[in-house]
Order: sequence, then C-alpha cells, then structure tokens
Amino acid sequence: MKLAALFSGGKDSTYAAHLEEKGGHEVPIFACMRPARGDSYMFHGVNIHLTPLLAEAQGKPLASAPSSGEKDKEVDELRRLIELLNVNGVITGAIASNYQRDRVNVICGELGITHLSPLWGKDPQELLETEIKSGMEIIVTHVAARGLDQQWLGRRIDMKAAAELKILGERYGVNVCGEGGEYESLVVDAPWFKKRLEIKKAEVIWENTSGTYIVNEASLRNK
Amino acid sequence: MKLAALFSGGKDSTYAAHLEEKGGHEVPIFACMRPARGDSYMFHGVNIHLTPLLAEAQGKPLASAPSSGEKDKEVDELRRLIELLNVNGVITGAIASNYQRDRVNVICGELGITHLSPLWGKDPQELLETEIKSGMEIIVTHVAARGLDQQWLGRRIDMKAAAELKILGERYGVNVCGEGGEYESLVVDAPWFKKRLEIKKAEVIWENTSGTYIVNEASLRNK
Repeated sequence: MKLAALFSGGKDSTYAAHLEEKGGHEVPIFACMRPARGDSYMFHGVNIHLTPLLAEAQGKPLASAPSSGEKDKEVDELRRLIELLNVNGVITGAIASNYQRDRVNVICGELGITHLSPLWGKDPQELLETEIKSGMEIIVTHVAARGLDQQWLGRRIDMKAAAELKILGERYGVNVCGEGGEYESLVVDAPWFKKRLEIKKAEVIWENTSGTYIVNEASLRNK
Repeated sequence: MKLAALFSGGKDSTYAAHLEEKGGHEVPIFACMRPARGDSYMFHGVNIHLTPLLAEAQGKPLASAPSSGEKDKEVDELRRLIELLNVNGVITGAIASNYQRDRVNVICGELGITHLSPLWGKDPQELLETEIKSGMEIIVTHVAARGLDQQWLGRRIDMKAAAELKILGERYGVNVCGEGGEYESLVVDAPWFKKRLEIKKAEVIWENTSGTYIVNEASLRNK
C-alpha cells in the first residue's frame, strides 16, 4: 500500500512513518500542515519550517500547506492537501487524541483511503522507551506543563530523561509522551536517516509557564 | 483540468501558473525540485528554500523533493514527485529550452497526463514586458552573463531594466528572459498574491563573472 505520512518532525510522526515502512508499506511522501497559530487542535507547529530538511534527511519528498490553525477550518485544509496526493492511505502518529484520530478517520473515509495509526493506544511510558531504543535522537522543542522548566528546552530525550518524565508524570499528571501538548519534540537523526540535521543557531523563548526552543539555522550533514 | 505547476519562485514559473489559472484551469498545488547543485540542467535552485513561503503567498500547497542535480538522475527524481500527485497535468514556465520541455513531455506521456507550457515560443522581449505589466514585482537573484554586473543583484525588473536588458541582448546576445541561465529571478509580490514576501536579510556573493543574491531571512506580510 502506498501511504503518505503526516509529518511534523516530532518523535511520534517520525516513528509512526518508520514503523509502517518497516512493516512493508511503501511511504513515498510525507505531508505536513503548517499552522499559523500556536494553539492548533490538530497540528504541531513548533519548528515546522524544518520539515523540508527533515523529510530530505529521510529521503522523502514533502507536500505541505499552510493551515489557518482555526478549529473548524483546519480539518478541511488537511483534507484538501491529502486529496491532492496519489496514495492509498495516511499514517498518523496519534497515540491517544480522539480529536485528531476521529477527524483523520472522517477525511480518509470520505476520500476512500485508509488511516493507519500504529502508535494508537500504546502505553505512553513503554512507547517513549521504545522510541528512544529505536535510536532516534530526540530533543525537546517546547514545554508547557508543571515540572517542565527551561532546562528541558533543547535537551535530548534519553533513558534518563524518560525516567524523569515518569516521575513528573506521577507527580503532576504529565503525559510522558507529551500527548496533551505537555511538550513537543524534534528528531534530528535516527539509524534510518540518510542525513542528520545539524542545528547551527537556536534560541530559547520563555513566557510565563511555557517555553520554546526555536531553531533559526540548520542544515543537513552526511553521515 | 487539475494541474500541478512546477514552481521555482522565479518569474516564468510564477507567471505560467497564473496564466493557466486565469484561463480556467484548476491549479491546486505547486511542485518544486530542490537541486543539490548549482549547475542543474533542469531546475533553478537559487533561493529555492523560499518556495514554501512563496507558494503560501499564492494560497497554494507545495510538494517538494530534493534533486541530485545530476543530469541522468534528476529527470527520474522529477517523475517520482509528479506521480505522487493526484493531477491531470503539469504546467511549466519553459520558453525555449527544448531540453527541459522534451523531458517533461516524456514524463507526462509515461504518466498519462498533460504538459502545458503557456510561455513556449514567446518572443522573449515581449514576454518580459508582459510579465512586468502583469504587476509581478520581480527581482534579480543571480547573474551569469556579460554585461550583467553586481548592480543587477537584488534589482527590480521594471520597464527601465527591461530596456537595458534589450540593449545588452543586442550587444552581447543575452537572452532578455534569462532563458540560457543569464539571470535568475524571484517574484516577491503580484496582484494575485494573497501575501507579499518581505526580504529581511540578504547577502550578495560574487565569484569571477557571476553572482547571487541570497535571501537569508524573509517572511510573509498581509497586503
């Protein structure tokens, strides 16, 4: 089956695409919505300008479209992009968000294609550890939850970080995979990447209780 | 007919897409190859990182893929991108390059879709003046021809510039539309753009007899 992977550059969309490809599906293209607002219900927008490079790092073309980020409109905007692609289905990295999953299901139903969400229903702690063990080099690019302070921005999510997230999860109810928007991530390399993303310039912006690690300059490096 | 416009951000691809849309075709998506080398036979690569913004300025999604820029490979790379799109045809801004036109014809023939090249065979001087009159705000981003010096980089192509190009064409045989690679251009605004591109930081690089105007920082502004 020929599938387009919905791709934000974060750990879950990156890993979901990889899993389906490993499982034997063809994933000839990534697709990405670029929300104009930070509070989109559907799409992760932090560092979304890096997706052309990150798709290239994985040897994939990228179809991308701006999205208003407005609740009623953004689902239509996603449908319009997907229906321009010559694929039999769409992969998403949804784990527990019924909101996202239901809407992609409706779009795929209308277009007569499949929706695969290989991470759906996984235990967050186990999933995060599996993602780390896959060899993905994951960094934190946004935090917005109690217990996640400025020191997390730009930090690599390794097993030590996963253990700390587990404690924060138990203490404050933080979802360790960031599924509720507690944090956002960026995958800069993985064993299946053809090139790795080199971050050359980044800045940290902190406002009240949340912060963002914005990559201002980056390029691909051969491995 | 639903068409994908091959799009580099330059005046000819921008104008060709506009013409077909004005003529009644649906142009729901732009497509762009990002050559890894400056001497690609098929694709214009200067400031190609701006195409997501420039497509957004025109309200279009963009499908893009890296290209090796190697003569034998890049045509295959283009075919692979086009066959991922759910369209009935492709628009190109080719004016006189048989090399590009023939190869896109072959790809479209193999995929059973149409190739439209509305600028094909036009008189270069007349075409350039028509493009200027269309209201496109065109700037020069690369020069590589006798008579085109550093002062042309970043310069707006208006009727005065077109008259100077005509004189240079007569004197040195420069194609006034830059079809032989004499110069490359960037369209930062046009009456049909929803937003205009604001260039915030740019640098000029000059080597021997050619030079490039590289946009380092840009964003979209509402009109």
